[in-house]
Amino acid sequence: MLADMEKTSADVLPLTMVSSEEQETICIFGTGDFGRSLGLKMLQCGYSIVFGSRNPRMSSLLPNGAGVLSYSEAAKKSDIIIIALHREHYDFLTELTEVLRGKILVDVSNNLKINQYPESNAEHLAELMPGAHVVKAFNTISAWALQSGALDASRQVLVCGNDSKAKHRVMDIVRSLGLTPLDQGSLMAASEIENYPLQLFPMWKFPFYLSAVLCVFFFVYCVIRDIIYPYVYEKKDSTFRLAISIPNRIFPIAALTLLAVVYLPGVIAAILQLYRGTKYRRFPDWLDHWMLCRKQLGLIALGFAFLHVLYTLVIPIRYYVRWRIGNQTISQAISKKENPFNTTYAWLNDSYLALGMLGFFLFVLLGITSLPSVSNVVNWREFRFVQSKLGYLTLILCTAHTLVYGGKRFLNPANLRWYLPSAHVIALIIPCTVLVIKFILILPCIDKTLTRIRQGWERNTKFSQSPFNAKTDI
Amino acid sequence: MLADMEKTSADVLPLTMVSSEEQETICIFGTGDFGRSLGLKMLQCGYSIVFGSRNPRMSSLLPNGAGVLSYSEAAKKSDIIIIALHREHYDFLTELTEVLRGKILVDVSNNLKINQYPESNAEHLAELMPGAHVVKAFNTISAWALQSGALDASRQVLVCGNDSKAKHRVMDIVRSLGLTPLDQGSLMAASEIENYPLQLFPMWKFPFYLSAVLCVFFFVYCVIRDIIYPYVYEKKDSTFRLAISIPNRIFPIAALTLLAVVYLPGVIAAILQLYRGTKYRRFPDWLDHWMLCRKQLGLIALGFAFLHVLYTLVIPIRYYVRWRIGNQTISQAISKKENPFNTTYAWLNDSYLALGMLGFFLFVLLGITSLPSVSNVVNWREFRFVQSKLGYLTLILCTAHTLVYGGKRFLNPANLRWYLPSAHVIALIIPCTVLVIKFILILPCIDKTLTRIRQGWERNTKFSQSPFNAKTDI
Amino acid sequence: MLADMEKTSADVLPLTMVSSEEQETICIFGTGDFGRSLGLKMLQCGYSIVFGSRNPRMSSLLPNGAGVLSYSEAAKKSDIIIIALHREHYDFLTELTEVLRGKILVDVSNNLKINQYPESNAEHLAELMPGAHVVKAFNTISAWALQSGALDASRQVLVCGNDSKAKHRVMDIVRSLGLTPLDQGSLMAASEIENYPLQLFPMWKFPFYLSAVLCVFFFVYCVIRDIIYPYVYEKKDSTFRLAISIPNRIFPIAALTLLAVVYLPGVIAAILQLYRGTKYRRFPDWLDHWMLCRKQLGLIALGFAFLHVLYTLVIPIRYYVRWRIGNQTISQAISKKENPFNTTYAWLNDSYLALGMLGFFLFVLLGITSLPSVSNVVNWREFRFVQSKLGYLTLILCTAHTLVYGGKRFLNPANLRWYLPSAHVIALIIPCTVLVIKFILILPCIDKTLTRIRQGWERNTKFSQSPFNAKTDI
Repeated sequence: MLADMEKTSADVLPLTMVSSEEQETICIFGTGDFGRSLGLKMLQCGYSIVFGSRNPRMSSLLPNGAGVLSYSEAAKKSDIIIIALHREHYDFLTELTEVLRGKILVDVSNNLKINQYPESNAEHLAELMPGAHVVKAFNTISAWALQSGALDASRQVLVCGNDSKAKHRVMDIVRSLGLTPLDQGSLMAASEIENYPLQLFPMWKFPFYLSAVLCVFFFVYCVIRDIIYPYVYEKKDSTFRLAISIPNRIFPIAALTLLAVVYLPGVIAAILQLYRGTKYRRFPDWLDHWMLCRKQLGLIALGFAFLHVLYTLVIPIRYYVRWRIGNQTISQAISKKENPFNTTYAWLNDSYLALGMLGFFLFVLLGITSLPSVSNVVNWREFRFVQSKLGYLTLILCTAHTLVYGGKRFLNPANLRWYLPSAHVIALIIPCTVLVIKFILILPCIDKTLTRIRQGWERNTKFSQSPFNAKTDI
Repeated sequence: MLADMEKTSADVLPLTMVSSEEQETICIFGTGDFGRSLGLKMLQCGYSIVFGSRNPRMSSLLPNGAGVLSYSEAAKKSDIIIIALHREHYDFLTELTEVLRGKILVDVSNNLKINQYPESNAEHLAELMPGAHVVKAFNTISAWALQSGALDASRQVLVCGNDSKAKHRVMDIVRSLGLTPLDQGSLMAASEIENYPLQLFPMWKFPFYLSAVLCVFFFVYCVIRDIIYPYVYEKKDSTFRLAISIPNRIFPIAALTLLAVVYLPGVIAAILQLYRGTKYRRFPDWLDHWMLCRKQLGLIALGFAFLHVLYTLVIPIRYYVRWRIGNQTISQAISKKENPFNTTYAWLNDSYLALGMLGFFLFVLLGITSLPSVSNVVNWREFRFVQSKLGYLTLILCTAHTLVYGGKRFLNPANLRWYLPSAHVIALIIPCTVLVIKFILILPCIDKTLTRIRQGWERNTKFSQSPFNAKTDI
Repeated sequence: MLADMEKTSADVLPLTMVSSEEQETICIFGTGDFGRSLGLKMLQCGYSIVFGSRNPRMSSLLPNGAGVLSYSEAAKKSDIIIIALHREHYDFLTELTEVLRGKILVDVSNNLKINQYPESNAEHLAELMPGAHVVKAFNTISAWALQSGALDASRQVLVCGNDSKAKHRVMDIVRSLGLTPLDQGSLMAASEIENYPLQLFPMWKFPFYLSAVLCVFFFVYCVIRDIIYPYVYEKKDSTFRLAISIPNRIFPIAALTLLAVVYLPGVIAAILQLYRGTKYRRFPDWLDHWMLCRKQLGLIALGFAFLHVLYTLVIPIRYYVRWRIGNQTISQAISKKENPFNTTYAWLNDSYLALGMLGFFLFVLLGITSLPSVSNVVNWREFRFVQSKLGYLTLILCTAHTLVYGGKRFLNPANLRWYLPSAHVIALIIPCTVLVIKFILILPCIDKTLTRIRQGWERNTKFSQSPFNAKTDI
């Protein structure tokens, strides 16, 4: 039967509206929005469509050219049946067990919540209909997108199923609709495929909230130091600083802190492994989760760094800056004195700018290598080299940038306002901590132990590892 | 036979020139440029090659190490035959029907025009040779690239065919040449695969011409207002403005207009759906096409925005700007008066800069998420969130940037030159229109109807949707 | 047996820790680090694991829940056996030939050096165990990554094997561990898969060393001209120039030179083809290698260009620049003279900035199109258009940027210091050479011959190409 179909399907032209006389017929159970949208799309791609409905005569909203029959009659027209019904109504399909025997049932359903049921809809369907070949597909595609042709988004259709032939039949249909099928293996994958469309950036949540908290904290901190303090003591209205000056203090601090937060779980994990003397015990859940969203933390940090660069480069165009420099020059011209050149200051100023720019350059490089298509073409050794070596170099450069920027002003009591130090001082706490611990960890004596642990050695084992195994096994 | 071959092919080393004694033999019909280039590449990858030619003795240009025989003799040497002939000469293959029975014929041909023939070359070949397994492959690879090793470009070889085993044999050969096969399904896909190499950015044409027209129009407009007008009235030579000042007026206008043009078809479609009361009628073709090239429009807008940022940041380095500011300062110093600080102006100036930078940041984010490898890892819900929510936020920020930049000068008659308003005023027409309509569309009363329509509800139906179906089906 | 397993595996939930009663059992030979890490990961994903060990009682470091038996007993528990042993110990597996008959053996081994053995480990294993189905997999994944869950890097598992069913079984297991299998074809691909994890940016070596040499040379050159020379003749301390001024001389020179070096092999190849009168002779190895790393050369050039842009835009923020401009203005204000406006200079200054910015914009565009995910969606014609046409336009713009920047100062003897011309003059040698040769090559008379050669025509052939073939074949 499958072989017959294959011959027929070869005559159907994809992506063209020409209708051949031997169109492949596909049956769709259910006349809801998704069923109709999919049916319309398939009609446009040259398939012949028969809808199955409980009340065939009541279903008048169907696309032109599609037939509508009772469930059992419709099922007889095709060996591929798309089940566009809600899970709660799968039970009635058991009445059709005989008609559906040997057919390919395509489960397109989605749930309303992640892990709503203990087993996926597709696996539930497969249990109800053991005689049919259940394939999960199309649930990641939006009905609206099918309808409007606006498939700018992912054209990927995740497909899984236990029967290989059935799965490949469905994948061919997916291709003929101009979409890209992605084989996800057996029906085991169905629950993940059903959860997929419900997610909204799950790995971004912690990084997002962390950076929001950081921004709000430093915003309040800077408003107190830079706007309220001068207003109270000098009656100076500095509110215009809210637009650029204050954000340009928050952005670099957030960027540096988040970048350090990317490397913090790594050093915590190393300390934990040293303390436990083994790598075969799981990390606590919070550390696991933290490690899994390091990429997202790093990308948000890069975003802040990018904003910091923009906000810094725009400085000489600002009215406030031009006014200040202009007035300074005028008053010096009036008092007829030129500035002497301060070589030390020129050195410091150029160094912190250079450190910042090199740090930003490496940061952009890290960002580019974390693009999926780039990280897929590098192997593990190369990825580690870039993300670990270059990553720490970036952290060192950015920390040095902030340190040199602060210069000697840092812990100068004259810089305290209401006992609050400059915001940069606070921003340096985490990066410096990470760098100091990392420096200790790469001291030869400690690094040696850590390397052994990471290669599988364990400190406290009841029975010592047999020397034979240690040499033989990978 | 296939099984035998598999054993043999396992002994051939890929990508190394070591010739094993049991090399797999591949037969190539035709000794044209592509046939010879492919043959040479295969020889280099360890295959044994036999060319089939009508005049075996005349064919002296073949790569060293390849044999050349008559068609029928060559075909007997291998069960894979690469048909490197033009479609017009397929007919003569019917003489070889018996020899080619059960063999894998690889169609590598291309046409000169898109949709040159009603059916693809590969399907035509399959019809002529029903006893053979036709596989379409290699036509997307350039002979020059095979020859020079310069495969920096796509290493993807699109493959399709009705016989699964034959297709996988060919895909294994593709892999052993260091290329990446991409299964495109059955021979139905052949016409698309044959059209593929002939395209030159089909989706970019409309966006490109639209932006070219925009640029030319605003270029002429700005030349009249900023160069000819001052020349006529003040005899001032401002032609040097052609290099930076005028482009930096055109770029932001083009960016903002194109960004608005990205969101315009969406609101038109919504109005159309509200008016028709259904989503099941196709949009007019121009709207469909417009919606399909929104991504390209957006990317061109991003290009203009990027140029605008560069051209703006370079302002303080320009000789003209330094000269103007320097002279202003000197003349004020000579007349011994300092500027008072204008807080309102500092606010306005910083705000429009900040709005612009935030808008550009979000714009870059949108651009990054439209990279294929990024948009493939986000689901539909995430994509919609980024492209719709963040997209409108970008449009709002950029429009606000322009509005604040204009400040109160906007419709000031003093700014008219020859009755022409400042170019920014014109640039704001489309973005403001889009934003106003969008604002109306998200008013609860209208949004509710629209959402219902998009979920499949229809206003004017002869028979009302049965309540049963509405609840059951997806 | 495979069919039975499939049924069972359908009951195992992926990525959830719920243990079903009918877990699939996988056997792992070898209790080294990688074997244990993989076993732990599989346990976590719901598999039942049995380790095979020579000394089952000595192996106490195994993950909780895993069994450990002798090799032959363990092998009986599963039809999939992961061989986590070093190649040197494969020989002893011959004792188990009978037990392993018909089983799937997964070779996960890696070597210490590239091409350490004449044949890959997996092919060696397949030779030793002809009755079993050998599949190469998992060797590209790091044990540490499996353990720590830190699979930010590539989740791709390269898989190859001669038996299609066995390969798909393994690919399903890969998927259920949350990884992405990539079918690499038959065992022929194993040696490449085994070399893959040992590489460290092989194509980047030559570009990296070339740019390092360039940077060092121009660094010394600029230090002599800009720091030592003024110190010797004017006793001026210009060492602060080391941070920004000197790098901002080196970066554009390196960028321009490397960009020209990208296009140099193309023109050399064209000259060689014209001289030889054929395209069917291989290029010398150095030229081949050079052509293969053009993309990497271009990306490094883009990195330098990016740094040059950053270092240039930061100029007005530098203390040194502000001090110089401020003092200049003050001294002019004191001497009460304003600068006249120099239109020619304004033109030159704006032009070189505009040329540079447009060049950089196109350069970024070239960089984006060389991202794997972007270059995969363009066809050969589009790729050539972008990389060749836009590439040369970029080279022309950047060369013109440098030429206009130099202005008339170029070969002015007054600019020589110790007979050394300005560094830009040296930087222009290669780009101008490439552009001049390219200009000659596209002259109609030469271009015609070259095109014919590239279409397969040969100048000196013993027998002329038969007109029949020329017309028939591709």
